[in-house]
Amino acid sequence: MPDSIPADNVGVVSPTTRHFDEPLRLDCGVTLNEYDLIYETYGTLNAERSNAVLICHALSGDHHAAGYHARNDAKPGWWDSCIGPGKPVDTNEYYVVSSNNLGGCAGSTGPLSINPATGKAFGPDFPIVTVRDWVESQARLADALGIDRWAAVMGGSLGGMQALQWAIDYPDRIAHAVVIAAASKLSTQNIAFNEVARQAIRYDTSFHGGHYREHDVMPERGLMLARMLGHITYLSDDVLHAKFGRELRDGKFNFGYDVEFQIESYLRHQGQAFVRRFDANSYLLMTKSLDYFDPAARFDNDLTKTVANCQAKFLVISFTSDWRFSPAKSRELVRALLDADKDVSYIDVDSEHGHDSFLMEIAAYHDVLRSYFARIPLEQQC
Amino acid sequence: MPDSIPADNVGVVSPTTRHFDEPLRLDCGVTLNEYDLIYETYGTLNAERSNAVLICHALSGDHHAAGYHARNDAKPGWWDSCIGPGKPVDTNEYYVVSSNNLGGCAGSTGPLSINPATGKAFGPDFPIVTVRDWVESQARLADALGIDRWAAVMGGSLGGMQALQWAIDYPDRIAHAVVIAAASKLSTQNIAFNEVARQAIRYDTSFHGGHYREHDVMPERGLMLARMLGHITYLSDDVLHAKFGRELRDGKFNFGYDVEFQIESYLRHQGQAFVRRFDANSYLLMTKSLDYFDPAARFDNDLTKTVANCQAKFLVISFTSDWRFSPAKSRELVRALLDADKDVSYIDVDSEHGHDSFLMEIAAYHDVLRSYFARIPLEQQC
Repeated sequence: MPDSIPADNVGVVSPTTRHFDEPLRLDCGVTLNEYDLIYETYGTLNAERSNAVLICHALSGDHHAAGYHARNDAKPGWWDSCIGPGKPVDTNEYYVVSSNNLGGCAGSTGPLSINPATGKAFGPDFPIVTVRDWVESQARLADALGIDRWAAVMGGSLGGMQALQWAIDYPDRIAHAVVIAAASKLSTQNIAFNEVARQAIRYDTSFHGGHYREHDVMPERGLMLARMLGHITYLSDDVLHAKFGRELRDGKFNFGYDVEFQIESYLRHQGQAFVRRFDANSYLLMTKSLDYFDPAARFDNDLTKTVANCQAKFLVISFTSDWRFSPAKSRELVRALLDADKDVSYIDVDSEHGHDSFLMEIAAYHDVLRSYFARIPLEQQC
Repeated sequence: MPDSIPADNVGVVSPTTRHFDEPLRLDCGVTLNEYDLIYETYGTLNAERSNAVLICHALSGDHHAAGYHARNDAKPGWWDSCIGPGKPVDTNEYYVVSSNNLGGCAGSTGPLSINPATGKAFGPDFPIVTVRDWVESQARLADALGIDRWAAVMGGSLGGMQALQWAIDYPDRIAHAVVIAAASKLSTQNIAFNEVARQAIRYDTSFHGGHYREHDVMPERGLMLARMLGHITYLSDDVLHAKFGRELRDGKFNFGYDVEFQIESYLRHQGQAFVRRFDANSYLLMTKSLDYFDPAARFDNDLTKTVANCQAKFLVISFTSDWRFSPAKSRELVRALLDADKDVSYIDVDSEHGHDSFLMEIAAYHDVLRSYFARIPLEQQC
């Protein structure tokens, strides 16, 4: 953290863990009799309890969206550029809630947690959870926090899918759905990349059918490969070119298999850093949640019908160079919302940064978020 | 093979292996004192020795481009749709030569071959060869066959790179360069995908630093992953969608990690089939040849200067949905050729099949090849 906390930073924050003992029946048929959710909040819930914003995280995110956990933290939360006093999601106005998804590895119940039935960690026996399951668990968190209705539910990528599912499953509990760099379902290519990532993890001889921790090992190489592959799909070809081009680490070819091009060094570094902070079973499970997400499947594969009962207003944002969840996927959702006579704003933000754009401080993007969120309280007074 | 050989098929063919004992100094600095090249020929070399066409293969190809090796072969050579009597490259007119690249695993000297210095297989000690090395070895094959000048050198993907390098290195020995679905250098993203593929192979615990055969194992899982990943990049998102969509193998989610979507089954099958026919050290080496290819690097990174001395006429072909080597890369080459006042024909073929289009029988594509090749003998009579 900088020596002095900037005025637009939420500062040092601490997560809260909440235990839930009402059984949660998951989409897969398994019931979790009890579970924990870890979450952070920024800003203050107003007396009317009308200013709460739920932040939903993506594949490798967690509840730590803004601020610092300690003064000497090197980095703030993953969406700190977007959340804080005076920032697009202004914590002077909003009470922001950010939780770690069930099945994650940052404190909410997941593969690393102890299974009360066995006294041992769930590991690979933790059930695969879906976006609907997450929304259900987040609704219970809202109940616990006394929030009847979110001013907004917001997320990028897999987080945007949760915002969309919220609008479908709880039409009266969400005023605005902010769906960023997302899609109403994965493409075949998306699933294909996820499958390669999963196989990389599962083929790792240290995986042991997911029971790697019992063997005191980690499928590090597999998880590294998965992350390296993921990273390629998060960035555009253009930004990779601009950042690394064909630059050589040693200025010449070495005719061997150590790092030669800078892009190789970058990918290996990204892979190694990820292995230190993420659990392989959680990663597998999250990719499955992505694959399964397809809310229209319950509505005759008709996306217009799927959103017909939504009451939320929508802000949909895509990025021109995002080839993981392309602007065409956002437009598909926007078209369905329009066909269903919903209130929707859409912007395709010009950015060369690919899918990762949603995490970045891009002026046009943050301006849109800022003005959208600034409008919400005014609307509520009407 | 069908019960009767179709009239437009070259029929049953046999490869020839030729030994070369003039030392070949490679780009990497290593000298191969002797080596074999395996090749096939189709059609008849005319008295003037002016009708020879060299076919260059891509990453996982080999010398068996057309016809059948045995009457009960299930499949013909990899470019059989394109080469044969009356086909675009008409073997009634042309003498077609197709060789396996040095470093490959189909019969030319490579990692599987015995290193005369040690009496053991080269394995990972086989030097990394470059596109220039291949052209040099192919020039020696041409010498041996008495071919002073190719009517055309032709290839797709990495094969197209060889055709381009031929035009640069031997301007007086190639009349036409047919460069299909290629690029004058890899993009950063291309290198990144190659790096993930290489790491998948090298991380496999059966890899043993490349000495896997000495341990009687194969890095099967790594090579499978590499091929699965490759396959995604060979196909367009659209064709994956058209072929597989989100179709489920069992018609429902199983909430586990066995095959659920048909695309997963397809990828695993492709990976498994590849492992049975390809050598991991060859695969590693071929990806490096791709990464290194950048002929303009020797010409101040100026592609126009690079092709300035070319005497060949060029046919450049790209495919609209190819995102591995996009049409923009072909246009870059075409622009440089035009700037250098070269004779170049270019077509961007409308196809949804992605990079793999170059192997397919697409009418507009084959028509262009057919008419281009039909024109060559007429030109030579002028």
